[in-house]
Amino acid sequence: MIHPKTRELVQSPQDKKIILLVLDGLGGLPHPQTGLTELETARLPNLHRLAARSSGGRMLVVEPGVTPGSGPAHLALFGYHPYEVEFGRGALEALGSEFELEPGDLAARANYATIDERGIVLDRRAARPSDEENRRLCGKLAEGLKARFHDAQVFILPGKEHRFTVVFRGPSLDAALNDNDPQREGRPLLDVLPERPEAEHAATVVGRFLDRAFEVLVDEPKANGMLLRGFSGLPRVVPFGERYGLRAGAIAAYPMYRGVARLVGMTVLGSPKSFEEEVAFLEARYGELDFFFVHFKHTDTAGHSGDFAEKVQQLETVDAVIPRFEALGPEVLIVTGDHSTPCIHKEHSWHPVPTILRSPLALWRGDAKFTERGLMAGDLGVFHATDLMPLALAHASRLSKFGA
Amino acid sequence: MIHPKTRELVQSPQDKKIILLVLDGLGGLPHPQTGLTELETARLPNLHRLAARSSGGRMLVVEPGVTPGSGPAHLALFGYHPYEVEFGRGALEALGSEFELEPGDLAARANYATIDERGIVLDRRAARPSDEENRRLCGKLAEGLKARFHDAQVFILPGKEHRFTVVFRGPSLDAALNDNDPQREGRPLLDVLPERPEAEHAATVVGRFLDRAFEVLVDEPKANGMLLRGFSGLPRVVPFGERYGLRAGAIAAYPMYRGVARLVGMTVLGSPKSFEEEVAFLEARYGELDFFFVHFKHTDTAGHSGDFAEKVQQLETVDAVIPRFEALGPEVLIVTGDHSTPCIHKEHSWHPVPTILRSPLALWRGDAKFTERGLMAGDLGVFHATDLMPLALAHASRLSKFGA
Repeated sequence: MIHPKTRELVQSPQDKKIILLVLDGLGGLPHPQTGLTELETARLPNLHRLAARSSGGRMLVVEPGVTPGSGPAHLALFGYHPYEVEFGRGALEALGSEFELEPGDLAARANYATIDERGIVLDRRAARPSDEENRRLCGKLAEGLKARFHDAQVFILPGKEHRFTVVFRGPSLDAALNDNDPQREGRPLLDVLPERPEAEHAATVVGRFLDRAFEVLVDEPKANGMLLRGFSGLPRVVPFGERYGLRAGAIAAYPMYRGVARLVGMTVLGSPKSFEEEVAFLEARYGELDFFFVHFKHTDTAGHSGDFAEKVQQLETVDAVIPRFEALGPEVLIVTGDHSTPCIHKEHSWHPVPTILRSPLALWRGDAKFTERGLMAGDLGVFHATDLMPLALAHASRLSKFGA
Repeated sequence: MIHPKTRELVQSPQDKKIILLVLDGLGGLPHPQTGLTELETARLPNLHRLAARSSGGRMLVVEPGVTPGSGPAHLALFGYHPYEVEFGRGALEALGSEFELEPGDLAARANYATIDERGIVLDRRAARPSDEENRRLCGKLAEGLKARFHDAQVFILPGKEHRFTVVFRGPSLDAALNDNDPQREGRPLLDVLPERPEAEHAATVVGRFLDRAFEVLVDEPKANGMLLRGFSGLPRVVPFGERYGLRAGAIAAYPMYRGVARLVGMTVLGSPKSFEEEVAFLEARYGELDFFFVHFKHTDTAGHSGDFAEKVQQLETVDAVIPRFEALGPEVLIVTGDHSTPCIHKEHSWHPVPTILRSPLALWRGDAKFTERGLMAGDLGVFHATDLMPLALAHASRLSKFGA
């Protein structure tokens, strides 16, 4: 987190803008045949040119060896150490399901489960349904639950196998509720009870929801019940704009990233459908704000599929658009990722993320490349994601001197 | 700060000396025409030779992105994290005015202000006088205040525009006093009151001073009063010598740096008039102590003026003297800065400071240069200033092993 003493130094000149371009899952690893990473394989004339005139380094997102999910990774990028933000599992799952969780929403992770007539849990995973079966069950639930529960609206978000997410939206939904999951098979379902008086209303809403949901599922041979765990709402944080003295906007085609940006209090600038639309949004609304978070998704998707050529292609797509970012003339232009998703790994990883920061005060190296290895000797070394915003502010003349 | 467990390892061999040569505002940035920094432009045969046989890296003075003033920067160099030392604004301003603040002194920031006959503040900045007018007013005050107030002596230190500093010197001047500044125009001046019994005497002294000062200024059309803020004395810290088991001395031509050294309890070795005199002092008194802080000012001055050629020249001046430091045969010779003052920025900056540490146990790189980029790949990487002293002690065989 930004040190409170550093935060006191924040000032807000009107004309110094910052663009943070996040290429999701940016970092990669060498291909076994060529020995070159995705970034080293791609043809990236603009990014390499930019790197040679930028501060560069590799960004540690959480802690050494720790692989972040997308939610925590973006929190870290925005300067909120994910270990210090109380982020309940339910809220995390909802954001991860690309659901636009709002302040006040109550979310829970859910499992389909097999329950006997006395309420004893026989199978905590309902014999692991397929993802398709999961979607059918969630559709059936959503259909059967159309009535509201008291004053709350319910959203059912399908997941993998037996997993899904339930979100309640309505007034006074305090999250201090216990799970109904007895943790072991052969034990009875637990009642969902309030852990403090403020949560009484939420307990009533959840109880009625469960009664009705079990009615809807009663004829299912396996998935005739559910376990709810990790009740939580959005964490409360000092808003990004207040913390850094910035009017900040988020431009992202995927709802999950708009969700995390909204969580830290950024203004979400519409719902662009593609990267091309994102850049057009940025250009159209550039005059309105001081800070722009722009999210590019497809590098991560290609990493997850293990499609090396596709990730290379996506990097080249971004490279071609870099001059449009430069043409806006931001004081600070940062290009980084939220984490690595190496194609040979097909998952997120803990490897520090290649990062460049272009400003008139950057200590550049002419021999830098926008690659994992081409930034190892850079000005920024290996640095913590939570230091990115203070550096960006400094380069934008937005941090005054400490002491005389 | 040095970890308390590390501090327990401190030992004090007699014959292992440390010299810390601080080139003020050392770090720079590339010149727009040549792409070379000040250090890269200068001819520095001795410093480059030393760098090729030293541990090298770049030193983060406070926190990433944070630009330190000179006082906090030197505290950091000496191993006191400036965020952890309570440094009141008044004391900071006094040190920044090159005033030799002593333990027990009470300092306050002051504004000339326009006050009406009922004591209402009409203009908190007295219509922003020029610096010249400020000096005239301070001279008039100093002249008119020649009498002592009780048992206290008063110093008036001119500043920029409406700003100046007042220092009280005498017994029992506790700093727990409120400002007399009502913060908003149209409100009456506040009485300066003690916030605890120990400060009663100080409140009386300040009250009498204000009465007399307003009499002296009574015929001024604008600056007929003053606001006092941030009453503070020197912070209390564990003395440098005690903390590190060193007999430590400071050699500095400028009073501000002697002041910070005195604040941490170093012996101040005279008042040399030039760098040449500083080096002569070091040679003359080298036998007496274990640790020498030697301060060179002109690199910072040239950085503030934005005079690239002058900064290059000053670096070459230092380079020529390096063999005299080596000839003394210290176990550890450190050459670093307190912060960067890049000529293209004309101000202090947050960029990590090039640092070399020569000792028989240094892990040197033969290709290192004493430049910002020539030390990026060095042994020390980017390291915190508060780690410099433990490293220096280790290289001087002054830290014993931890555990068996």
